[in-house]
Amino acid sequence: MVESCIIHPVGIVRRRGETAWIEVFGPYRDAMLGLEGFSHIQVIFWFHENDTAEIRRTLRVHPRKDPSNPLTGVFATHSPKRPNLIGLTRCRITGIDGSRIAIDAIDARDGSPVIDIKCFIPDVQPPEDVRVPDWV
Amino acid sequence: MVESCIIHPVGIVRRRGETAWIEVFGPYRDAMLGLEGFSHIQVIFWFHENDTAEIRRTLRVHPRKDPSNPLTGVFATHSPKRPNLIGLTRCRITGIDGSRIAIDAIDARDGSPVIDIKCFIPDVQPPEDVRVPDWV
Repeated sequence: MVESCIIHPVGIVRRRGETAWIEVFGPYRDAMLGLEGFSHIQVIFWFHENDTAEIRRTLRVHPRKDPSNPLTGVFATHSPKRPNLIGLTRCRITGIDGSRIAIDAIDARDGSPVIDIKCFIPDVQPPEDVRVPDWV
Repeated sequence: MVESCIIHPVGIVRRRGETAWIEVFGPYRDAMLGLEGFSHIQVIFWFHENDTAEIRRTLRVHPRKDPSNPLTGVFATHSPKRPNLIGLTRCRITGIDGSRIAIDAIDARDGSPVIDIKCFIPDVQPPEDVRVPDWV
């Protein structure tokens, strides 16, 4: 049984007003080769401001912080309060300059550690019969 | 600067022949409430068999292990060799029974630690002008 996994951030989210980008750390720059062929990436980041034992014990929330939404397990939400503070957002690449990947927008705070980047490959066949609950 | 993030697995991938499921660990079961309202989840797991310093130093690969594909940075691929061994797959839920989430299929090995589960919410508006390189 794996007890824990150690993640080393590979970059950081930067935001200034309407501008957002990812700064990839030097040791990981070689992993960017070929990103220019993609229009979109999936950015996996860490909700670092929530990294406390108490928040990581949060297992149920009212989605979108709306008390009228039913109490819901965090695995059935995208809440930034969860046992492992992983955020996931698809972003459009607006430019690449050295170690900097400019993106259209991201729902991460300035300073959030980036823990992985994956190219976005659209579905050959979109999923059928997708079902979501009423609160969505 | 965040030096490292500690991940505690919340479950494990199980596969037996054509059958696949996620076994959520006891302390995290409360986080499953409401999953039954969704048809699909995004499963984030750890490529535990690749957790060596050498593999985690791999920054470039030939996608799909095909030497005729151009050498590509791992951030521009879904390679299981990457600095942080994070895998991401959208799965259809075929049933939920206690701590077990049966799924249609997953490209993770039996025994892979599950590090997060997120509900799948389809795009209100699919991304436009998606571009991918020729090897895709």
